[in-house]
Amino acid sequence: MTKDLEATERGSFTAKDYHDPPPAPLFDSSELGKWSFYRALIAEFVATLLFLYVTVLTVIGYKNQSDTTLNGTDAACGGVGILGIAWAFGGMIFVLVYCTAGISVSLIRAVMYIVAQSLGAIAGVGLVKAFQSSYYKKYGGGANTLNDGYSTGVGLSAEIIGTFVLVYTVFSATDPKRVARDSHVPVLAPLPIGFAVFMVHLATIPITGTGINPARSLGAAVIYNKDDAWDDHWIFWVGPFIGAAIAAFYHQFILRAGAAKALGSFRSSTHV
Amino acid sequence: MTKDLEATERGSFTAKDYHDPPPAPLFDSSELGKWSFYRALIAEFVATLLFLYVTVLTVIGYKNQSDTTLNGTDAACGGVGILGIAWAFGGMIFVLVYCTAGISVSLIRAVMYIVAQSLGAIAGVGLVKAFQSSYYKKYGGGANTLNDGYSTGVGLSAEIIGTFVLVYTVFSATDPKRVARDSHVPVLAPLPIGFAVFMVHLATIPITGTGINPARSLGAAVIYNKDDAWDDHWIFWVGPFIGAAIAAFYHQFILRAGAAKALGSFRSSTHV
Amino acid sequence: MTKDLEATERGSFTAKDYHDPPPAPLFDSSELGKWSFYRALIAEFVATLLFLYVTVLTVIGYKNQSDTTLNGTDAACGGVGILGIAWAFGGMIFVLVYCTAGISVSLIRAVMYIVAQSLGAIAGVGLVKAFQSSYYKKYGGGANTLNDGYSTGVGLSAEIIGTFVLVYTVFSATDPKRVARDSHVPVLAPLPIGFAVFMVHLATIPITGTGINPARSLGAAVIYNKDDAWDDHWIFWVGPFIGAAIAAFYHQFILRAGAAKALGSFRSSTHV
Amino acid sequence: MTKDLEATERGSFTAKDYHDPPPAPLFDSSELGKWSFYRALIAEFVATLLFLYVTVLTVIGYKNQSDTTLNGTDAACGGVGILGIAWAFGGMIFVLVYCTAGISVSLIRAVMYIVAQSLGAIAGVGLVKAFQSSYYKKYGGGANTLNDGYSTGVGLSAEIIGTFVLVYTVFSATDPKRVARDSHVPVLAPLPIGFAVFMVHLATIPITGTGINPARSLGAAVIYNKDDAWDDHWIFWVGPFIGAAIAAFYHQFILRAGAAKALGSFRSSTHV
Repeated sequence: MTKDLEATERGSFTAKDYHDPPPAPLFDSSELGKWSFYRALIAEFVATLLFLYVTVLTVIGYKNQSDTTLNGTDAACGGVGILGIAWAFGGMIFVLVYCTAGISVSLIRAVMYIVAQSLGAIAGVGLVKAFQSSYYKKYGGGANTLNDGYSTGVGLSAEIIGTFVLVYTVFSATDPKRVARDSHVPVLAPLPIGFAVFMVHLATIPITGTGINPARSLGAAVIYNKDDAWDDHWIFWVGPFIGAAIAAFYHQFILRAGAAKALGSFRSSTHV
Repeated sequence: MTKDLEATERGSFTAKDYHDPPPAPLFDSSELGKWSFYRALIAEFVATLLFLYVTVLTVIGYKNQSDTTLNGTDAACGGVGILGIAWAFGGMIFVLVYCTAGISVSLIRAVMYIVAQSLGAIAGVGLVKAFQSSYYKKYGGGANTLNDGYSTGVGLSAEIIGTFVLVYTVFSATDPKRVARDSHVPVLAPLPIGFAVFMVHLATIPITGTGINPARSLGAAVIYNKDDAWDDHWIFWVGPFIGAAIAAFYHQFILRAGAAKALGSFRSSTHV
Repeated sequence: MTKDLEATERGSFTAKDYHDPPPAPLFDSSELGKWSFYRALIAEFVATLLFLYVTVLTVIGYKNQSDTTLNGTDAACGGVGILGIAWAFGGMIFVLVYCTAGISVSLIRAVMYIVAQSLGAIAGVGLVKAFQSSYYKKYGGGANTLNDGYSTGVGLSAEIIGTFVLVYTVFSATDPKRVARDSHVPVLAPLPIGFAVFMVHLATIPITGTGINPARSLGAAVIYNKDDAWDDHWIFWVGPFIGAAIAAFYHQFILRAGAAKALGSFRSSTHV
Repeated sequence: MTKDLEATERGSFTAKDYHDPPPAPLFDSSELGKWSFYRALIAEFVATLLFLYVTVLTVIGYKNQSDTTLNGTDAACGGVGILGIAWAFGGMIFVLVYCTAGISVSLIRAVMYIVAQSLGAIAGVGLVKAFQSSYYKKYGGGANTLNDGYSTGVGLSAEIIGTFVLVYTVFSATDPKRVARDSHVPVLAPLPIGFAVFMVHLATIPITGTGINPARSLGAAVIYNKDDAWDDHWIFWVGPFIGAAIAAFYHQFILRAGAAKALGSFRSSTHV
């Protein structure tokens, strides 16, 4: 019905420059014998450990600085604040995405990555608990919970939209069509991705503490291990998965016009 | 009378490398039948929705954190502050400009974009109202109004100059002459544009709350819907349009020496 | 005596790739008849106007937010803070350096640029005074003065070192040797330059309010026009000039090994 | 046993594009006669001097701003805060790494660099003491010490992990394999490195003040010269060295699969 003309509108870029790669096989058991597979798992584990270590340490340190019962009336004012916490999350994502290059992902890898990230998150928060033994429990352990005054629906929606913002940014910044056109986009991609995380934290820390990353929420819940963290925990898995799915659909079928293409192929194959 | 020698002063760039493209037709009704047209409208709607959702949520959250009647004497100090609000606006513009590539714009598109952005803004603020039902009205709904102690003239001037800073940065950062010379400028352009928005917010939040974007001001006013937001609302349309027009004139006829060229052609055609 | 081997140590870059350009003529009166000359002066005027407008407005707004006599005990906490002021100065320099490309400079241009910048600075602060009539004088007008408890020698030294940091960064980031090797450095240079300004403000706002830019100090002093601003005003011209001279010497004769080269040529010409 | 296929998975990059350079000779006494050697030492000295000058000045200024005994109840709130201190450290590293290009390093150079950096650090903190004579001792002189409530083990671990984050980022961002693939990585590397320093400061300022740089800790301890700074001083040498060693091992033998390669060569040589 319609043609995707946008690519050619820029003149210097023709459709020939880029073709979608053939999809990787979803299940490739030969991977299990490769060192590169285990190496990637270790890298995911370490990166998530460092992520949780730095961010939750910042959260606990900030709450200690703001504690007027402990530090007197005005001690609160010099702390890093919620702005500092938002920077910690956004900045760590920037650094870690920059450090770990793009990796093709099969189904078996995806599952194992989630496992490695969850273990890394648990280890990272565990370190914070060990380092901040006096303050860790007192200041909520960095766990994601629904704050007072917000319904479950609001919390779930905040996680869905927050994850949508993040995943939409990831797809836009790493779109291979764009890579073909501007050869150095992948190197720059970590900056908008880190900023997207920073933004979502500024907006939704007051609502849920901001999850948008199930491994981060799981790690904090396991180590904190109190009822209020577990009661709402499903929100921080269901929300991100729904948000990511909507972002993937939006990117593939709206922004990249996959819908029109899919419809076109369907017609060709059924009408001929 | 004079020649524009600056381009050749850099040695590696000659005037041959770049020619202004022929102007796009102002009204091209065939666009109305293209999927890419509606796709672009959806993208504008979604981007503006996300922009208002994140930024107004940050504003409301900050005012709640600073509310000493609610949180006691010192609870105020850890909030994101006006600095955090300025980051939210600047950072979201950075992320969204990065994610949405440059698009050629005809008149029909420009009008429809404004409509899509306004609807997106209304939807984004509507979400904030739904999520923050207890605080939304109480903390001003993120609406742009003239703050106490500032005259209409000051507010209007602040919007004009603020929009000038933004549009001047947009033109400079995306100038196709510059693109020809430094091939990767478009990829980097979102950073100074986002920073320009950040800067203008630091300077003028105390005066008008900073509009410099009519769709943003409209969305907040429609959902907030109180007299004080509507009374000054014209400022947030007139100011940005004047500021953008001055920036366009400045860029085209001063910085790019269009004046001299225009004068030159005029002479050629009248004297011969 | 010695050879500069560093350039070739990187392998992909040989000394042949770059030669210093012949110096521009110091005084070229034909410039006075060129439109591009006046265009550049207008651009300097406008950029400095915008710089002072945004930054001094941020200073005044911050001091108003922090005024507990006006806003009650805790109103102070949400303001942009000194961190926000430092961002305003650094961020504006980033935006404006990004927007105005590198320009070759003759002596006549240099003098006229300083004049245009000073006029732009006066106009920018004038706008702030007009917009913030109730607060401008009360909060010091953004003028650079020596704060209580610091001697003249400390203030002057702080300006010298601060300007050294800035000019050293400018030279390093725009070194044409480096440009030849990494073709896109000029596009990225505004970021470290803006950060250098941000850093110097974080460090020396408590001492002098941070000048490191005579036009900025002059504009604020002219509009504020009180004795305490004029008494110390010479510091903000002498300091920056000494700091810039030391940075130029350091870059040319230490970092770029000009000393060894100069010595080499001297020997060749005297011994033969 | 396994092959490192990741490099070829990206299609546009084959193993032929990059080979590890032959290692530089560890001890090359001919360097001692080169001007470029002394030039590099001066550059290290100056850069470290500027680093300590800006950052410790920010620390002292912040503590003065926050001192309620001096400035009254609420004066504390507008200071740069711990967030500002973290920006000072991270931002200066960004600027200085950007300004000083990558340098190949032999053993003699490494030792002399540490000496030059330590002298630069002492000189930088010395300037701060001279400029802030009234406040320097009172506010702790920017020295790294173990804060109350944290054991030696926690402080040492915090320094190890913090240095690991920094050195891991440095290796990832400057990996020559990556440089071959994305030709402009070295120019962008300073940003993630600066952010890594920013992040580590956000997280561990409450524990040790954050060292992760022996020269920085030594400079502050020498000028401050009180027992509490010297008692814990060994932590700020042992921690960084252990953290850097782990990061080097992790990068070389896990991320770059050196382990598998080393094992492979071992087998080839022993089994044949």
